Amino acid sequence: MVEITRRNLLSTVPHGAVAMALAPVALSAQPTSSLRTAGQSFLEKAEQLKPRLKEFVQAPLGLVSPVKDAAQPLGWRIEEAGDADAIASRLLKKKGDTLIIDFGGHRAGHLSFDIENIGDAIGAPVRLRFTFGEVIPDIAEPFYPYKGWLSESWLPEEVVTIDLVPSSVRLPRRYAFRFVKIELLGLPVGRKIALRNVRAHALTSATGTVPALPKRLPADLLEMDRVAAATLRDCMQTVFEDGPRRDQRLWTGDLRLQALTSYVTFPNNDLVKRCLYLLAAFPREDGLLPANVFEYPRPAQAPEFMMDYSALFSVTLADYVAATGDTAFGLELWDAALRQVRLVGEMIGDNAEIKFPKGILAFVDWNPQLDRNAALHAISIFALKQVMALAEKLGRAADVRDLPDKIARAEATALKAFWSPELKLFTSGSKRQISMASQAWMTLAGVGTRKMRSDALLNALRHPDVVQPRTPYLTHYVTEALFVAGHGLEALKIMRAYWGGMLKAGADTFWEAFAPDNPRVAPYNDFHVNSFCHAWSCTPSYLLRKYARQIG
Amino acid sequence: MVEITRRNLLSTVPHGAVAMALAPVALSAQPTSSLRTAGQSFLEKAEQLKPRLKEFVQAPLGLVSPVKDAAQPLGWRIEEAGDADAIASRLLKKKGDTLIIDFGGHRAGHLSFDIENIGDAIGAPVRLRFTFGEVIPDIAEPFYPYKGWLSESWLPEEVVTIDLVPSSVRLPRRYAFRFVKIELLGLPVGRKIALRNVRAHALTSATGTVPALPKRLPADLLEMDRVAAATLRDCMQTVFEDGPRRDQRLWTGDLRLQALTSYVTFPNNDLVKRCLYLLAAFPREDGLLPANVFEYPRPAQAPEFMMDYSALFSVTLADYVAATGDTAFGLELWDAALRQVRLVGEMIGDNAEIKFPKGILAFVDWNPQLDRNAALHAISIFALKQVMALAEKLGRAADVRDLPDKIARAEATALKAFWSPELKLFTSGSKRQISMASQAWMTLAGVGTRKMRSDALLNALRHPDVVQPRTPYLTHYVTEALFVAGHGLEALKIMRAYWGGMLKAGADTFWEAFAPDNPRVAPYNDFHVNSFCHAWSCTPSYLLRKYARQIG
Repeated sequence: MVEITRRNLLSTVPHGAVAMALAPVALSAQPTSSLRTAGQSFLEKAEQLKPRLKEFVQAPLGLVSPVKDAAQPLGWRIEEAGDADAIASRLLKKKGDTLIIDFGGHRAGHLSFDIENIGDAIGAPVRLRFTFGEVIPDIAEPFYPYKGWLSESWLPEEVVTIDLVPSSVRLPRRYAFRFVKIELLGLPVGRKIALRNVRAHALTSATGTVPALPKRLPADLLEMDRVAAATLRDCMQTVFEDGPRRDQRLWTGDLRLQALTSYVTFPNNDLVKRCLYLLAAFPREDGLLPANVFEYPRPAQAPEFMMDYSALFSVTLADYVAATGDTAFGLELWDAALRQVRLVGEMIGDNAEIKFPKGILAFVDWNPQLDRNAALHAISIFALKQVMALAEKLGRAADVRDLPDKIARAEATALKAFWSPELKLFTSGSKRQISMASQAWMTLAGVGTRKMRSDALLNALRHPDVVQPRTPYLTHYVTEALFVAGHGLEALKIMRAYWGGMLKAGADTFWEAFAPDNPRVAPYNDFHVNSFCHAWSCTPSYLLRKYARQIG
Repeated sequence: MVEITRRNLLSTVPHGAVAMALAPVALSAQPTSSLRTAGQSFLEKAEQLKPRLKEFVQAPLGLVSPVKDAAQPLGWRIEEAGDADAIASRLLKKKGDTLIIDFGGHRAGHLSFDIENIGDAIGAPVRLRFTFGEVIPDIAEPFYPYKGWLSESWLPEEVVTIDLVPSSVRLPRRYAFRFVKIELLGLPVGRKIALRNVRAHALTSATGTVPALPKRLPADLLEMDRVAAATLRDCMQTVFEDGPRRDQRLWTGDLRLQALTSYVTFPNNDLVKRCLYLLAAFPREDGLLPANVFEYPRPAQAPEFMMDYSALFSVTLADYVAATGDTAFGLELWDAALRQVRLVGEMIGDNAEIKFPKGILAFVDWNPQLDRNAALHAISIFALKQVMALAEKLGRAADVRDLPDKIARAEATALKAFWSPELKLFTSGSKRQISMASQAWMTLAGVGTRKMRSDALLNALRHPDVVQPRTPYLTHYVTEALFVAGHGLEALKIMRAYWGGMLKAGADTFWEAFAPDNPRVAPYNDFHVNSFCHAWSCTPSYLLRKYARQIG
């Protein structure tokens, strides 16, 4: 997910789908004070589960230089410009002298180096600009003038003034990078500096080795798996972050996909627990949980509350108990999980219209054309069903006796409101919009018959005006729906076009935003503020394992 | 002094005066190994004398804004824009929002503050540019494009990216400032930050209170004394620095003036000792001491060796023993002091021509028109006489038996080569240049009769083509020479025009460079890289005490 500003939401979410209702709907009451007490306890448990990050010190491969190349999806290729030993011998002498260092793969972490004078002592500070590149355009193109509407402060650069030469320097912040561009901004005339022992200090809370996929799989899928797992690894910090380059926040929607992928790659159940505790620690007065939390400077409720993400909190807990069998933890968060689906259910009227209480938003995907009504309805049903299954496992069936009836009525409403018997697919909104989002979520929610869902997916895929996903996040759910519906070939086709397209564009980790027909899609109006290691893009490693039987 | 680059010296020192001779002259031998052993011991003693800096935490006065004002010497005045409480209420919201904070006086030290969000959490880093102003133009005028030939890295600015809000921040480096301009470079749309508890952490190794001057002195001189003492205070760090904004180095020429001033204001004899040990620790092979040393990252010989500064090392030791009576220390450095004047004496030929050994330079003043020959000759005589006096105090008369004869010969040569009986002043060089430098140093060296020196000073002062000083450093020696010659009124006139001129231009501390007819003199071709708290400008506090009888 991204930082959500008022402008961002107003400009990208169509009014019809997620306009805020002025009057909050009535919500079942629960004493605020008991929520607060539970929240404090969850927070303490979350802090106890805070992982110590592992640091991997890595030497660079060498120097590179970017070359314009219209044949490349991002417009650039790199050429080698020297091996690792060449870095220290490429002296920086005058303003503008530049080194571009290639670490050969993506890292989230720190940068250290030794700076030395060659010849006369420097006798002045050395000012350097560091630019951290996840992809080649980061280090090949100027960042300014910046045209995006996310904070300019996310541009991955750092101007550092070093008073002491020689000295060992470790830059103050954490960065996300494969490439590091180092530009000399100020040095006395005639003086020369060399940088030695440039090192990345990669940080992660991922451990162990990803279980290998069957050897029979084609090379492109094995590569896709490797890059997907690297994406997850670099997003696994003291929480599951959405992306180490930007935002660096724990979002429920991203968390669900990361947790699912982690169970089959870098299992860290404590990190999933920590994240669920953190989200559960910050309910609104009515018990609704935020779409994300701030971890630093201290864990805190973020301002965004989102209908679909609240529902997915409950699903993430159900996934966790299913993956780990840890029913004790399931019971701890049971009340919160049940509460989310009830609160979300209350946001849907009998006529399938979404009635957003004040301050509640929804996401589904970044596509501003998307009508979210059908998808949100389906997500609510999906979550209700997952919570039913969880209740079973936790022995809390008594708490959900009313849910089967609620689900049945919601399904009936959904079919009535969204199913088009003529088109054989789900539409959404007054203009009967056809989107992959609607078909995917109706399929995952199990609305209608197996045949209806299968038809819906294929018909939408072939429809010339279908509204396509704009994010790996929704692309994941579309792909998973195709697998669930038994359309493995179609699912693989999407994976190859989407994640495979990023591989062809040179991805070392998978990106926040990509479109096969527009590799430089810029959801925030400036490509350089995109995140190129983004958690919601990590699911190929999950999909390739979960639906292995339909693949290869 | 300033950082000396090859370009700097070649472009500002006239060839005739200081061209490097290709062949080194023969120098008396001393085993290198014993110099090294002594150097190591001096270095250890210097480190034992390293002072703990005192930190004074200071709150700002409030906010100011600069206003163009052609009537002001530097072209600006400031207007109050809010009291100290206003700082936290002046929120930063969008790129370019700026606070200019006034601490009401000059400090050398750190800056700290608390950063808080007002309203919604920030959810992104905050990027700020800090510009540290010693004078109004620093915070009123853009630094770029930079036109100077000193390293651009000296421009006093820092771009800082703060990941955590709220948090307490202490900027990483030491700065020299009265004003701090804080500009917002990046913040998410709609977010707001406030800066609270902005504090200067002023550092100095000066202690105590400056003894008051007689109350009868006019207010302008009392103010000149206050500002001069503040200049010294902010240059007193773990060495006597030349200036806290730039260079931050220990130079012999600056040290002498700082030490003289410190004895009568902020006495710190250990700091003088430490500085003399540091300089004595790094002799060349022949025993010549460098014009300056680097203190950090570890004490080291700097590349500049300068004839006049080597001579002034011995003078500074003589001053120290005269001021403190510490003959034990005088004896420790006696060999080094005697060696400097002998080596410098050997650089002057019988015909008064300077023969610079390879790699030896000279300073005297920054004026590129200045012919330094006469002044350097006089400085050598001055130093020889000071060393004679020191030998007396130390009981080492036997070591200097040859010096009276050398001095007599040097004086005779000086009169023959430089004295103009027609003009009644000292000239220098083949073009018989008339400069204040020549008269001042000949006076201080006691060359010729009292009458000759008095005439020389007054005649030069009145001469329409006299080459004037370009630095407070040489202006000090001119002023002191006038006092020594009994021309107190003329000396005071210079002090009022020069240091008084800086006061009228708004100086909180005295500057590296100033000319009454050109307050924005830019010796490095860009006014913004000037230092406005510069040690060699601190001597009014010494002069007003030492020559009190001639004043007021």
